[in-house]
Amino acid sequence: MKIFKFFPIFLFFIVFSCVSSTKNEYLEGQNLPKFAIAIHGGAGTILKTQMSDSLEAAYIEILSKAVTAGHDILSTGGSALDAVGVSINILEDSPLFNAGKGAVFTHDQTNELDASIMDGATLNAGAVAGVMHIKNPIDLARSVMDNSPHVFMYGEGAEAFAKDQGFNMVEQDYFYTQARYDHLMRVKATEEQNSTLFEKEMLPNNPAEMFFDPILKASKYGTVGCVALDQNGNLAAGTSTGGMTNKQFGRIGDAPVIGAGTYANNQSCAVSATGWGEYFIRGVVAHDISAMMQYGGFDLEQSTSTVIDKKIPELGGDGGVIAMDKHGNISMRFNTPGMYRAQIDTNGLLKVGIYKSDTLLTK
Amino acid sequence: MKIFKFFPIFLFFIVFSCVSSTKNEYLEGQNLPKFAIAIHGGAGTILKTQMSDSLEAAYIEILSKAVTAGHDILSTGGSALDAVGVSINILEDSPLFNAGKGAVFTHDQTNELDASIMDGATLNAGAVAGVMHIKNPIDLARSVMDNSPHVFMYGEGAEAFAKDQGFNMVEQDYFYTQARYDHLMRVKATEEQNSTLFEKEMLPNNPAEMFFDPILKASKYGTVGCVALDQNGNLAAGTSTGGMTNKQFGRIGDAPVIGAGTYANNQSCAVSATGWGEYFIRGVVAHDISAMMQYGGFDLEQSTSTVIDKKIPELGGDGGVIAMDKHGNISMRFNTPGMYRAQIDTNGLLKVGIYKSDTLLTK
Repeated sequence: MKIFKFFPIFLFFIVFSCVSSTKNEYLEGQNLPKFAIAIHGGAGTILKTQMSDSLEAAYIEILSKAVTAGHDILSTGGSALDAVGVSINILEDSPLFNAGKGAVFTHDQTNELDASIMDGATLNAGAVAGVMHIKNPIDLARSVMDNSPHVFMYGEGAEAFAKDQGFNMVEQDYFYTQARYDHLMRVKATEEQNSTLFEKEMLPNNPAEMFFDPILKASKYGTVGCVALDQNGNLAAGTSTGGMTNKQFGRIGDAPVIGAGTYANNQSCAVSATGWGEYFIRGVVAHDISAMMQYGGFDLEQSTSTVIDKKIPELGGDGGVIAMDKHGNISMRFNTPGMYRAQIDTNGLLKVGIYKSDTLLTK
Repeated sequence: MKIFKFFPIFLFFIVFSCVSSTKNEYLEGQNLPKFAIAIHGGAGTILKTQMSDSLEAAYIEILSKAVTAGHDILSTGGSALDAVGVSINILEDSPLFNAGKGAVFTHDQTNELDASIMDGATLNAGAVAGVMHIKNPIDLARSVMDNSPHVFMYGEGAEAFAKDQGFNMVEQDYFYTQARYDHLMRVKATEEQNSTLFEKEMLPNNPAEMFFDPILKASKYGTVGCVALDQNGNLAAGTSTGGMTNKQFGRIGDAPVIGAGTYANNQSCAVSATGWGEYFIRGVVAHDISAMMQYGGFDLEQSTSTVIDKKIPELGGDGGVIAMDKHGNISMRFNTPGMYRAQIDTNGLLKVGIYKSDTLLTK
């Protein structure tokens, strides 16, 4: 692919900042309830040089559609929780993202999905991991929160609960996409090629290094997530993912872990993470950002920056977060070449971004 | 049982404080490396009026044995991580605690075990949930940390990894104890009796309230855990549990959730929690205590007190934590009538406690 293909698209980009931070401003002369929403479709090695025009357009279209659907809920007085669910449903239903339809394959060629949601007003939360027959895992996480005495449920147990709640089960075939399957095959081939090295040299010292392989690395991400502030001043966050290509059966990443992949608290912020889950669990990333604001007096951007630009790379991981504070300020911080993302801020301005450099497209 | 039976035991109690906080002091005239260890065997409705002399003595004996074994590791220069593992192994192998042998039964009459461990020096962590054939789940959590690229593994996937690592599998029978089985039967009978009320009145508003039933409430706890500081100044924390009596198949509590049930960071503290897991996940309890110290400048006791005496009860939950800072100060904070616990502080003083009021027995 040649770079000149992308000049027309560049004309439509208005670069706001290298990593966006939309500072909220009160509407002039008014004090109307503020609301805002932001979504991500995964951080990772997303390079303009590896993207076709049509695929780029498809990403921009679905990101715009998803964030707008959530915003419509908020603009009519709906809850941040409902907005988060609706936006994530659209991303889950798209084969372009590693969540719901289009989830990546495990080592055993299954699809195991994880999701979590949290209500910043009550600190209620729901999470599911390792579900294999749920079309929209974020809806099941919401149901665990609303209708079960538990917060976190796994696999068949979570699916038994889903059946009780009247969820329709889908076959594993539903999640199949040729692209994800081909991806697994490439990753496995690379793994086999390098297995001697992995086993003999890397494993004893740092087993996580087996994922430094560039093919594996590019495949790790694709989580989707959403943060929102509603007109009642309530924050919510949600995250949904198919996990990591070639992951071992039973591996749980950060997406369903409250405090790691998802956290919301009206006293600080709402966060949804996307990245190398193992590091995000160890960093308790989403809660750490919240705690820096709540106890340390840092603002939203300082908190996301410290965690994503400093702490996570120091551990050896990478990825990104979207975060929103109680004023509707938005931070989209990532240390990877790209992160699929979109936002509608408190001024109603829709922006979409994919790469790091050109950041946000205003539509 | 009559209260006078316990007067002889009272004579041996030396009450240090209502909730213990052992402030570390440098050894006079010396600056030797400090080390310390603390364990818990679960918080809950543990009442002296419901405890026989012999059972009380058995608890004191096993708690002393477990904490001493970990301390022996530390005193010979071993790591905090190893000490945590050794102490927890002894508690797991005892049928008196809800971890390993003696784990409670799920609703489906199985035993599903969870555990996690974290290294405060590197922020490395390992966790397993829903394992059914692992004698010592804390050892598997350690192996996930040391030998896998993942941090958190569930069920059959975790057990497949365990087999690869040469773990011996045990049958479910291994975990059977008559007392835990009888307990499940009593809880189920109560549940059935109250099911109409639960379904029709309580579930729609606050499903968690079904656990306010006193029989269920008393059965929720029994997690074991350990925090330690070694002579190299490294902190570690670990937690192991059989979960909640009558829990739904697939329910994950706080014990295997890094940040909720277990957290360790040399910059702040090591924490192991025991309580109503759903609330401890929502509160991101272990990391919250660490964050209050790291960002808010609170000391160990202020942090555990804020979380356990204020935040968790405000959410509606209860339980306790053991925590240790980088100086070896120990906090054992719980808002329940009792918590099985023991410690050997930086002065080498062994103390054991069960109830809230009489707190700690010096041996």
